[in-house]
Amino acid sequence: MPTHDDTRELAARVVDGDRRAVARAISRVESEGASAASMVRAVHARTGRGYLVGVTGAPGVGKSTLVDRLALTLRSRGRTVGVLAVDPSSPFSGGAVLGDRVRMQTHAGDDGVFVRSMASRGQLGGLARATSDAALVLDAAGFEVIVIETVGVGQAEVEISRAADVTLVVTMPGGGDGVQALKAGVMEIADLFVVNKADQAGVERAAAEIESLLHLNDYRPGDWRPPVLRTRATEGRGVEEVVAALDRFRARGGEGAEQRRRARVRTRIRQLVSHRFLDHAEHRALDPGTFDRLVEHVAGAVIDPYTAADRILDRAVSGAAPTASPAPRSKGPGLG
Amino acid sequence: MPTHDDTRELAARVVDGDRRAVARAISRVESEGASAASMVRAVHARTGRGYLVGVTGAPGVGKSTLVDRLALTLRSRGRTVGVLAVDPSSPFSGGAVLGDRVRMQTHAGDDGVFVRSMASRGQLGGLARATSDAALVLDAAGFEVIVIETVGVGQAEVEISRAADVTLVVTMPGGGDGVQALKAGVMEIADLFVVNKADQAGVERAAAEIESLLHLNDYRPGDWRPPVLRTRATEGRGVEEVVAALDRFRARGGEGAEQRRRARVRTRIRQLVSHRFLDHAEHRALDPGTFDRLVEHVAGAVIDPYTAADRILDRAVSGAAPTASPAPRSKGPGLG
Repeated sequence: MPTHDDTRELAARVVDGDRRAVARAISRVESEGASAASMVRAVHARTGRGYLVGVTGAPGVGKSTLVDRLALTLRSRGRTVGVLAVDPSSPFSGGAVLGDRVRMQTHAGDDGVFVRSMASRGQLGGLARATSDAALVLDAAGFEVIVIETVGVGQAEVEISRAADVTLVVTMPGGGDGVQALKAGVMEIADLFVVNKADQAGVERAAAEIESLLHLNDYRPGDWRPPVLRTRATEGRGVEEVVAALDRFRARGGEGAEQRRRARVRTRIRQLVSHRFLDHAEHRALDPGTFDRLVEHVAGAVIDPYTAADRILDRAVSGAAPTASPAPRSKGPGLG
Repeated sequence: MPTHDDTRELAARVVDGDRRAVARAISRVESEGASAASMVRAVHARTGRGYLVGVTGAPGVGKSTLVDRLALTLRSRGRTVGVLAVDPSSPFSGGAVLGDRVRMQTHAGDDGVFVRSMASRGQLGGLARATSDAALVLDAAGFEVIVIETVGVGQAEVEISRAADVTLVVTMPGGGDGVQALKAGVMEIADLFVVNKADQAGVERAAAEIESLLHLNDYRPGDWRPPVLRTRATEGRGVEEVVAALDRFRARGGEGAEQRRRARVRTRIRQLVSHRFLDHAEHRALDPGTFDRLVEHVAGAVIDPYTAADRILDRAVSGAAPTASPAPRSKGPGLG
């Protein structure tokens, strides 16, 4: 485990924008446990300036190409870009699939772009946490725009990309990927729609389908109505317009943007509290074997899962017991 | 809020197999809070006989049709079937999309089949919990096979369908839905693959792609190697073979099946503990406004999220503090 001094030195190099330090710091936050926490603690005071752009959509719509083009366009305007490609790939197929090195070749020799794949090594919850922490590392390193690109159209991928200041949903003409995929919880989180592969047949229909879904929403004057843009990312077409729309969205700022940042932080804290409490409950508050015994009892229908949860909480929580039939109260420190 | 007697009476009717009671009981477990818990408590002793079949795959591959055909085939062999169609549809588009009534027409007049859509009303975590609880209700009602059908190819959908005794992954020829979608975390959870729409061009290639991915795995003699089956669900072709494969998988049983049931229960208990603890921490252990203040401080980079989580845990947890720098210990009940 890294020492305190080692972490502080690494953090200082991150803040200086040292690329190898950024890579090492992200590896630290990818690990479970104390080294992720101490890494974030060491850089956190230097965060808060990066703008987080979430990019989500079904597999095969061309997200990576679009993100690479976005990065090039932003670079041409002098802005630095960090990219986190979140890939919940299977342990079965072995690690990240996208290949950072291949993607980095697009930006070879440019220190203003940093691309990193975030692969799931275990629970999805862990990946979401690591991605948030990696975004903080890039923020501390001074990257002005941080793109979080998620593979997949599931609710969890949507939740990861929602942890952004602006969310861009990418689709393409034709196939089951059109409106069907959009139904799966992405309509309400999109700030921008991009129909990529706009040279293919059906682009008008795909755009019209999105417009008709947007039409169901009751936008009032002054509300942001998500624009539906068309791109041919492989050739860079339409990418300038995407950047312009992102800038318009950012320029609005205001109360909505602040609320969103706070909601993101709230979710973050909840996740950390939950994760640490479970570890405490299972491994410290309960006697060894107790959790396993409760599992056996529920599996055998001796007790129900809610009763099992109550018993664990009775043991692990002080003060006002959150159960229906509270255990005798103890006077814990700082509880009123 | 329902009374204790009311819940017990409803549970008794569920156990008798009363369809309207089953529908009402599922509505109860869909709600947040105490009425879900009391419903599960009331039926739990009568659970443990149902066999859970998870069905997952990308939108548009024909999962619903396949599940309806599976139900008809199982019925023809005298087995009763409950179907939970998990649809994380958006609040934007307004509730469940699949239409239970349309689907139920396939099974009109047959009390041995029960179909219910489970739609996301808020957090995905809530949907996962409600789906598990609804499966318990169907189990208590005596349904012998309970199908949990998830829309989408995301990791969270995969985790919902993994909460089953056997998991069936459905795909179709062509498009980006093939191997790309399979990469997104489903390879390692599939016990059976079905290539549906097997009359379309590219079926051989789709099957071969799956086989080649399976080939990467090192199956030993006696291991279950997921079969790759082909169906034309709209015509019922190949569905008998799917049922036969499900039966073969079930007949193996043994230690693996038991471990899986226990892992499911373990996840269940953890989710409940986490959910209840967060509620306790935020609304009872902390003074009003404290959580919001911590959120402000993290959003303003005054403190980092890990430190905020530590402060919450210090307040809400008794005994051995789960933080790196423990607060003074209190002697909570039953700890030590």
